[in-house]
Amino acid sequence: MNILVQKYGGSSLSSADKIKAIAKKISKRFEEYEKMIIVVSAMGKTTDELTNLAKEISDSKNPREMDMLLTTGEQITASLMSIALSDLGLKAKSINAHHAGITTNESYTKAIIQDFDKNKIEKHLKDNDILVLTGFQGVTDDGDYTTLGRGGSDTSAVAVASIFNTDCEIYSDFPGIYTVDPKEYPKAKKISVISYDEMLEMSKLGAKVLHSRAVELAKKYKTKIYCGASFSDEKGSVIMDVGFEAPVVTGLSLDDNQIQVNVLNLPNNYKFVNDIFESASKYNINIDMISIIYHEKSIDMSFSVVDESIEEVKNYLDKYTSEHDRITVEYKDKLTKLSIVGLGMKKEKGVAYRFFSRLNSIPIKLVTTSEIKISCLIEEKYKEKAVKELTEEFEL
Amino acid sequence: MNILVQKYGGSSLSSADKIKAIAKKISKRFEEYEKMIIVVSAMGKTTDELTNLAKEISDSKNPREMDMLLTTGEQITASLMSIALSDLGLKAKSINAHHAGITTNESYTKAIIQDFDKNKIEKHLKDNDILVLTGFQGVTDDGDYTTLGRGGSDTSAVAVASIFNTDCEIYSDFPGIYTVDPKEYPKAKKISVISYDEMLEMSKLGAKVLHSRAVELAKKYKTKIYCGASFSDEKGSVIMDVGFEAPVVTGLSLDDNQIQVNVLNLPNNYKFVNDIFESASKYNINIDMISIIYHEKSIDMSFSVVDESIEEVKNYLDKYTSEHDRITVEYKDKLTKLSIVGLGMKKEKGVAYRFFSRLNSIPIKLVTTSEIKISCLIEEKYKEKAVKELTEEFEL
Repeated sequence: MNILVQKYGGSSLSSADKIKAIAKKISKRFEEYEKMIIVVSAMGKTTDELTNLAKEISDSKNPREMDMLLTTGEQITASLMSIALSDLGLKAKSINAHHAGITTNESYTKAIIQDFDKNKIEKHLKDNDILVLTGFQGVTDDGDYTTLGRGGSDTSAVAVASIFNTDCEIYSDFPGIYTVDPKEYPKAKKISVISYDEMLEMSKLGAKVLHSRAVELAKKYKTKIYCGASFSDEKGSVIMDVGFEAPVVTGLSLDDNQIQVNVLNLPNNYKFVNDIFESASKYNINIDMISIIYHEKSIDMSFSVVDESIEEVKNYLDKYTSEHDRITVEYKDKLTKLSIVGLGMKKEKGVAYRFFSRLNSIPIKLVTTSEIKISCLIEEKYKEKAVKELTEEFEL
Repeated sequence: MNILVQKYGGSSLSSADKIKAIAKKISKRFEEYEKMIIVVSAMGKTTDELTNLAKEISDSKNPREMDMLLTTGEQITASLMSIALSDLGLKAKSINAHHAGITTNESYTKAIIQDFDKNKIEKHLKDNDILVLTGFQGVTDDGDYTTLGRGGSDTSAVAVASIFNTDCEIYSDFPGIYTVDPKEYPKAKKISVISYDEMLEMSKLGAKVLHSRAVELAKKYKTKIYCGASFSDEKGSVIMDVGFEAPVVTGLSLDDNQIQVNVLNLPNNYKFVNDIFESASKYNINIDMISIIYHEKSIDMSFSVVDESIEEVKNYLDKYTSEHDRITVEYKDKLTKLSIVGLGMKKEKGVAYRFFSRLNSIPIKLVTTSEIKISCLIEEKYKEKAVKELTEEFEL
């Protein structure tokens, strides 16, 4: 079956007029395909508005109910888009995660897709040209509604493209993927092709164009992703298996609101380190950069978390340190994570040297590296200077 | 199980503060019960807003998609109410028609409940004190979302009370049921107890307090309904089996925007009359008052429809008359249906005489009667005078 999957972000669908405009764009594209599946996000600021309404009622988040609440956002867009497509003479039908058989685990507000029922979708496709699928959501085995976390619609789109073994086009206000965030650094260049691994590092590191889980999924199933602008014909960026020589450093990304947590003087017993990781996982705290140093009689740990997790981290560590009075904990906020990513790093020597020597006037709090990435934590006030130095050094 | 069902209307739930206030009211009431099921409508004007959004996109209504769209309204309220109840320390859970197993036929936008899965609801009740159920909606056997038509949340509430064989409390901005609409006639009296049949006639006839299908269902299952004000302790009205002597006339109701359709000179063959009724049913046109007069060689029909059906009626009749050129059709708009209802009419003689003699200065367009009701169609301009005469005559 000649089928195309497209995903449209919320700001491209924020009004009736925009929905109608996107419907026209889809109908033109449909001329080339037998079937299409359109994945939609909630209109404009709907998710934020619903979240605020819930906050007005209670500060205590009830994740199961938050997901029941938030899933309505995409359902509204999906039905309106289906109405718009029908108005253009297409056979369209909106379906939600329940109709599509997208089952997830029970991690409400950040659920993981466990299964995607291709047969169910094929059944809906049989009598329709175009299905409009609610992004961002799934159902548990018990039928409860779940959401996949911020940006989860990208993951929904790649998932459906993967099971149909077809391409996925992701449209938003961004006309593609840039070497650095073009909002903050207008000299940024657009990347025409980028590998899954590079994009993965970039999106994990704060390049907001794509949800990193979407890229992971695309990598796993070799699904080609095209990222383009909803309302322009400007050529976008393609994420795919890259066979040719890649530049040493493809991009630079920044992630603000990082907090560094130092846990010092842990007894020299790996059980204590394990305790901390286990609890972090249990409380769904996203520990990012990690550095562990083993002394003869003690262990020092340093890791980074984002602002929103800090209360949970503090609650846990306060309790932990009160039981073990040798251990001390320090927090350092207003930090930015700065990373450079590039497949070429694998082969090219001296990238780390160039990175650190350019940043020699900036105090670095924490460093982690992978085969194709170097990340460091710096104070936010040094951000601009660091970007200037690195974009010059690596011609970004 | 000691269980209570309550339903709250949309204007009682139009803000976060109102939802919190209602949650407090529920939590107080919960002290008397083991379990509660709260049926909620969409917040404030949500349904109208969503409908308008769809209209901005397309004039052609797509009923399946409209229901997919509108069901989100109640889901938003249900989850927010559940969050508010949880915040008060209650074990609450929101469920929608799918979770509750409320199956309907496929008459999108005006679906009829076909089954209500008590087991499913009991399963949800097991681990929770209070379930918050989305009113107004169901699912087809295929899992498509349907709505029960305007006011359908009343029907949802009575349905769930009926299967649990318990009472149903319906809260809205109205503090109960009045002899005449108190907004237009401030001298109206509140009715403390009214029978199902009387209420049925009243609600069918435009008394907007209760959805008539809800009353029909309550009558069938002998479910006691209490109608009261959401934000006041003023005593409301009870709808139940009335055993004692009822007043001759309990209430008067009015229904504006009626259109009279006269189909004259039909061939004297019942097939033609049948054709018209059959088509009306097929196009979902709600024909209300009907009068048919058989002449020797022809049949004259007169019936009333509401404004919103008139285009469909005209389309059908234009086609019909063009095929049968003897037949003529007349339309008369801006009419009001005025009715008096009372169980006591069954025994008391002369009610019709008193009704018509009081209205002798007003031209009457059409009359229908039942055992406990007299209805007539008059021009809207005579409405006020007619109400004045009849409230005096029957002490309403």
